[in-house]
Amino acid sequence: MAKNHKVSPFAPGETVELPLINGVRIAVAEAGIKYANRTDVLLMLFPEGTQAGGVLTRSKTSSAPVDWCREQLQHGSARALVVNSGNANAFTGWRGRETVEATAAFAAEAAGCDPERVFIASTGVIGEPLDASKFDGVLKEMSSRAQEDLWTAAAKAIMTTDTFPKLASRRALIGNVPVTLNGIAKGSGMIAPDMATMLAFIVTDAPIESHVLTRLCQRHVKPTFNAITVDGDTSTSDTLLIFATGEAAARGAPKIACLDDPEAAAFSAALLGLMHDLSMQVVKDGEGITKLMTIHVEGAETGEAARVIGLAIGNSPLVKTAAAGEDANWGRIVAAIGKSGEAANRDRLSIWFGDILVAKEGMRNPDYQETLGAAYMKNAEIEIRVDAGTGGPGRATVWASDLTHGYIDINADYRS
Amino acid sequence: MAKNHKVSPFAPGETVELPLINGVRIAVAEAGIKYANRTDVLLMLFPEGTQAGGVLTRSKTSSAPVDWCREQLQHGSARALVVNSGNANAFTGWRGRETVEATAAFAAEAAGCDPERVFIASTGVIGEPLDASKFDGVLKEMSSRAQEDLWTAAAKAIMTTDTFPKLASRRALIGNVPVTLNGIAKGSGMIAPDMATMLAFIVTDAPIESHVLTRLCQRHVKPTFNAITVDGDTSTSDTLLIFATGEAAARGAPKIACLDDPEAAAFSAALLGLMHDLSMQVVKDGEGITKLMTIHVEGAETGEAARVIGLAIGNSPLVKTAAAGEDANWGRIVAAIGKSGEAANRDRLSIWFGDILVAKEGMRNPDYQETLGAAYMKNAEIEIRVDAGTGGPGRATVWASDLTHGYIDINADYRS
Repeated sequence: MAKNHKVSPFAPGETVELPLINGVRIAVAEAGIKYANRTDVLLMLFPEGTQAGGVLTRSKTSSAPVDWCREQLQHGSARALVVNSGNANAFTGWRGRETVEATAAFAAEAAGCDPERVFIASTGVIGEPLDASKFDGVLKEMSSRAQEDLWTAAAKAIMTTDTFPKLASRRALIGNVPVTLNGIAKGSGMIAPDMATMLAFIVTDAPIESHVLTRLCQRHVKPTFNAITVDGDTSTSDTLLIFATGEAAARGAPKIACLDDPEAAAFSAALLGLMHDLSMQVVKDGEGITKLMTIHVEGAETGEAARVIGLAIGNSPLVKTAAAGEDANWGRIVAAIGKSGEAANRDRLSIWFGDILVAKEGMRNPDYQETLGAAYMKNAEIEIRVDAGTGGPGRATVWASDLTHGYIDINADYRS
Repeated sequence: MAKNHKVSPFAPGETVELPLINGVRIAVAEAGIKYANRTDVLLMLFPEGTQAGGVLTRSKTSSAPVDWCREQLQHGSARALVVNSGNANAFTGWRGRETVEATAAFAAEAAGCDPERVFIASTGVIGEPLDASKFDGVLKEMSSRAQEDLWTAAAKAIMTTDTFPKLASRRALIGNVPVTLNGIAKGSGMIAPDMATMLAFIVTDAPIESHVLTRLCQRHVKPTFNAITVDGDTSTSDTLLIFATGEAAARGAPKIACLDDPEAAAFSAALLGLMHDLSMQVVKDGEGITKLMTIHVEGAETGEAARVIGLAIGNSPLVKTAAAGEDANWGRIVAAIGKSGEAANRDRLSIWFGDILVAKEGMRNPDYQETLGAAYMKNAEIEIRVDAGTGGPGRATVWASDLTHGYIDINADYRS
């Protein structure tokens, strides 16, 4: 953390311990990139034959590491992942590119592989040159002591304004062979959907080809990372990468080489669950969060329209401050729906807080009692349900944090 | 004001006195719609023959008064304007419509005209039924004491969370005959562009037909009201109406019946200046404002692309909190440009704070000194200039307030 911000009220009681994934070795280090006395570099080493897939930010000002990963996803073969916190190496021009190339060279030497097999992600301040010499020697030393049981340390090393490390794990059966999916993520501010996401890294021992991994990520990112919002600000560095070592093939797991392979279904379901879990941890650590809003939209023309309406609600500063103030101000939800640009039938619109029907047929429910709404808003987790009234089949769920004094505190002085 | 919020640091030292417009009579009253001990109803009476034009919110959940005004703009003939604060009469279904019709009837009786000649606007809480009986008798009594010199009182009666009344005036020559344009506006929160605007009312004695007035509004709203943002939340009630009494025709001013009438040019320029003045007063009273950002974008593909990029910057919670914290965090500007969706050449992008060149050719300007940026951010008015680097001709200017603890204070408890 940049400063000692208050830990999110949604932080898990205890950090989950992830199972090992054979052959995946981890090391963390203090390279002093920005923060003192905390780990800020993660090195993950993968066995020969590891396949990589993923999705990256659609920002027009994407970072140098994002550009690098986009290139390497073309071949989809990985031996190492280097992640640093404290500096995003974004908007750093040709120097940023040089830093990435130098970092890949250091990591390649440490891992004994081609530089093109090294995936890189950086998170932190934008626009500051990142000195590649910070990694010189460090990565080599890290590789010598990397070990398999450091998942929690890995999740901690990539944090910036996060108030808790984010980890999750799932299991799936492929041809009756159990496979493991481990994931870590970081992100707390500059979190918005419609793009890949902040940083998330998933590793599995399942034998799956790169293009299948990428297609699964693309499919699952919509209802997970792309359905959460903290502040509507999309990052330059959003990166979701998944690495498949294929080690389970040695235990009899069939290889998955195409998306419609029936064996892919169980893996896909586990991956979706894992991505949902990690994305919920990110929004639950939204900067300054005191309330978690789950926004269900139905009755929209399409699923995408429902998502846009949900995000208009979840991104509305007025809805977010009302939630923070425990004010059942559903009129602001009406305004947010109205500004979304998507079709909604004002005179058929319905809105619920939890099970409380607040508005129906374009006006306040005559039976609605303000005291019920006010009591409901005391909850830490608030469900908002909207029927957009078009009669269409579109539905979507979006998760959002509220907007509080804590958010201002964190962001009015993040760099200083 | 709902509560005693701190007056904006950009409030004018003294309220300007608007000149009279012959035949336009004004009255204000305390109808107790929501607030106690303050005026909350405005009645404006226009002479026979007054033409009306305007633009209204594009919100899909527009208010009942907005729907009413949209109908009456079809004929464009006006005799009265009724505005209330404290209740927006939005999302009030058939009851909202009934309230509008009853209000028009009361006002018509008071003004001695058809109800269809009455224009209505309401601002305040959304979703609460507005009791039309509040206006019964009140409008009649108001009409009996209406007088021409109450412009300041009119501007005060339509305030909600505004911390100062907003008035402006311009003069123009039409065929060498001086005409006057007076305007009042309200708005402080739920202010976003891409729509008409909050509430603004302009009155002139120039003889101009309704459709010309509307076209001029549509043209000028883009660089004025639609180029300001407080919180990106578009209102259900945005209304900009302009009333032209035509009284100057008696003094020899030629009638303007079409947009390309050469006599329209001087009027159009004066109207643009007036709309700019009023819109700046609105953003300068943005809820919780401590910094006013003027964002110039050039080098975009089109003017619209430049406006979208400017608004992405002006609406970014991270840029807004950085401004509030006096942090020259230009990396957040890069991220906002990147998320705007409009074309920008990351590697040719330049950014200035005032005259300070912070970034050029896709990276930090080597000569940039952080101390200069930090010192610049101490200013109350901050100019941000961006060259999007596409080489295109598109340019636009956008004005935005910052995001502060004051905004949270105001909006976490506005209704209560």
